[in-house]
Amino acid sequence: MCVAKKILFVVLDGAADRPAVDKTTPLQAADIPFLDRLAQEGILGIMDVIAPGTPPGSDTAHLSLLGYTPSEVYTGRGPFEAAGVGIDVRPGDIAFRGNFATVKDGLVVDRRAGRISDTHELSEAIRKQLRLDCEFLFKESAGHRAVLVLRGEDLSPSVTQTDPQHTGAMLHSKPKTNDASSRRTANIVNDFTRQVCSILADHPVNRERTLANQLPANAVLLRGVGSVPQLVPFEQRTGLNAAVIAATALVIGIGKLTGMRYIPTKGATGHVDSNIEEKVKNVNKALREHAFVLLNIKGADEAGHDGNFNAKMHFLTRVDAALSNLTIDESTLVVITADHTTPVSLREHSGDPVPFLIRGKGVRTDQTNAFNEYIAAGGGMNRIRGRDMMPVLMDLLGKGTKFGA
Amino acid sequence: MCVAKKILFVVLDGAADRPAVDKTTPLQAADIPFLDRLAQEGILGIMDVIAPGTPPGSDTAHLSLLGYTPSEVYTGRGPFEAAGVGIDVRPGDIAFRGNFATVKDGLVVDRRAGRISDTHELSEAIRKQLRLDCEFLFKESAGHRAVLVLRGEDLSPSVTQTDPQHTGAMLHSKPKTNDASSRRTANIVNDFTRQVCSILADHPVNRERTLANQLPANAVLLRGVGSVPQLVPFEQRTGLNAAVIAATALVIGIGKLTGMRYIPTKGATGHVDSNIEEKVKNVNKALREHAFVLLNIKGADEAGHDGNFNAKMHFLTRVDAALSNLTIDESTLVVITADHTTPVSLREHSGDPVPFLIRGKGVRTDQTNAFNEYIAAGGGMNRIRGRDMMPVLMDLLGKGTKFGA
Repeated sequence: MCVAKKILFVVLDGAADRPAVDKTTPLQAADIPFLDRLAQEGILGIMDVIAPGTPPGSDTAHLSLLGYTPSEVYTGRGPFEAAGVGIDVRPGDIAFRGNFATVKDGLVVDRRAGRISDTHELSEAIRKQLRLDCEFLFKESAGHRAVLVLRGEDLSPSVTQTDPQHTGAMLHSKPKTNDASSRRTANIVNDFTRQVCSILADHPVNRERTLANQLPANAVLLRGVGSVPQLVPFEQRTGLNAAVIAATALVIGIGKLTGMRYIPTKGATGHVDSNIEEKVKNVNKALREHAFVLLNIKGADEAGHDGNFNAKMHFLTRVDAALSNLTIDESTLVVITADHTTPVSLREHSGDPVPFLIRGKGVRTDQTNAFNEYIAAGGGMNRIRGRDMMPVLMDLLGKGTKFGA
Repeated sequence: MCVAKKILFVVLDGAADRPAVDKTTPLQAADIPFLDRLAQEGILGIMDVIAPGTPPGSDTAHLSLLGYTPSEVYTGRGPFEAAGVGIDVRPGDIAFRGNFATVKDGLVVDRRAGRISDTHELSEAIRKQLRLDCEFLFKESAGHRAVLVLRGEDLSPSVTQTDPQHTGAMLHSKPKTNDASSRRTANIVNDFTRQVCSILADHPVNRERTLANQLPANAVLLRGVGSVPQLVPFEQRTGLNAAVIAATALVIGIGKLTGMRYIPTKGATGHVDSNIEEKVKNVNKALREHAFVLLNIKGADEAGHDGNFNAKMHFLTRVDAALSNLTIDESTLVVITADHTTPVSLREHSGDPVPFLIRGKGVRTDQTNAFNEYIAAGGGMNRIRGRDMMPVLMDLLGKGTKFGA
């Protein structure tokens, strides 16, 4: 067989960086002999996941990397989070990310309600008592997080959020465009805020928290509003049956909304303590039954957001050790990349290109022998865009879409 | 004079490859001292002729390389083949490529009618006896090939082809869109099929073939339908009077439809046995009278489609020797590239980028000193698209189109 048959697409979330300690990056400083070997056997390049200088969100980045055009399908992160936490969203639904928060006299005192860890009972109360002027679904997620989905006719994602994103006044939602659907949706959102505050105010959980000197979770702030897009299933676009292995709701949600099978992993947390060894075991299993496996490993991004160079470096060293247990040969194309750069110096996403490598049958290879931002910039793939990656991989599988004759 | 004055654009059709024997490509394995010298004196890069991962057709590739936008002007290969075999096609004509074939009881037994070599008499019979519901032109081409052009009002390229492209039932043409023109065109095509079968059935040539135990050419299969585009002449776009030197009808047709002068070459076959020495002599002559010469050398593509590494390598060695007789100096920009990659491992076009070099006055040059896929990936031009090549060359002639003041 002259072409590869399967694809393992590994996203080291936020792994790319800018020069930090001693002008090196965490990828350079980490001990990653397995990735370096893949680099030696494969081809490297750098990639503008969205466009040069544009910091990607994790959502738009993953959509691009999977071959979708975010500008056509993306209106906000809510729909993917909602799908990720298990809500069976439908095209046209309006979805929000939510935070349980502590509000006092209309002012947000803590956006995470003292990092409350279990909002199960509070969410149950909201589900039971809330009455909105449309069908809705509300579900708690990890920690202080939740999602709200509005369903029905005459709804619009063109409304402002209620989360001020820092301490300060809780916001009223306003229509962003002057049409009946947006005005109606803003009204429903504000109604949600009022009713939720009232439902949570005297909830036994909050009374207990106040007695225990913990901040009460007495409001839910909404952000990331988006309309659930109609996405052509990944398998329909590519002919590849696909699975997603990830810890974060967002990536799981993108997998679900593109029709991938979600394979849960015990101990996968999305943090630097995540059970990545178990994830790699699941990848090996998943590749037996799937032609495409998307593996997202989140920890490096978190360390970047925390501004912790050493944590990022050590996590990448641990990732390399875990990935070295992959049981793959040249008939599986392996892609290693990041969805965006999260410099420890910035603590947020930047628009720098990310390094990537492709290893497997048919790849032209190059002279590179290490995987990091600097070496990748001299790789044989030069510089491509995120949206180009899937066509390149499909072509390596011998399934390129020819234009012309 | 500080800028070059002329351009020689050499397309080594399908010359690019993926790593094959011992991880090398035919370009790497071939002995090409002349091209290596041009590489040393010039600048290299890699090029996505259409887009990363998109396998180009030879038609869309040449259009891109000449600065046209295929997505705007290309509907199918037929128009270019028709122009290439000498039909004076007009914008709006509907043109097909055709194959004389052997059909028995409605089943295609051989798509090439036993590789019949001369269809002159059969074609003459079709021209004389065929009556269609619109003006038409039918012309035989090399071997079993032919072209059909339909002319008149209310015709459409939005119809399916009759060539099944493998043995099996001959297809009925169907409208691809539900409009009167497409329905009418499909009817005309099916009428063509019926009448041609009847004209050829008892033709003396076929009676002789059957007696000699050869397959009769008793049908004509159509494919590659397209509407003849209105192309702004190349000279009007660039100010460069241009000539095309090529063996294949397609490239000749693209030259003709863009208003280039076609200079025929004795012994140019489009195969690995082609008289490329004579082509190079013609290039030297053509450059005296033309500011732009497009030279297409086809053999490497054929060897790629045959999966023959050695044939491809030896042909490229021979091409290099022939090109070393070019009488050009730095005032002529030389471009050497391929229109697409045709890996011997795939036997068809792939979407890998192609290497290119530009040598001549004003070029920045780089550190490269050999012409192949690997070295080019490290060249000073980095990675561009096919559509960018003509603007780059025009700019090197001091004729760039400035944007702004």
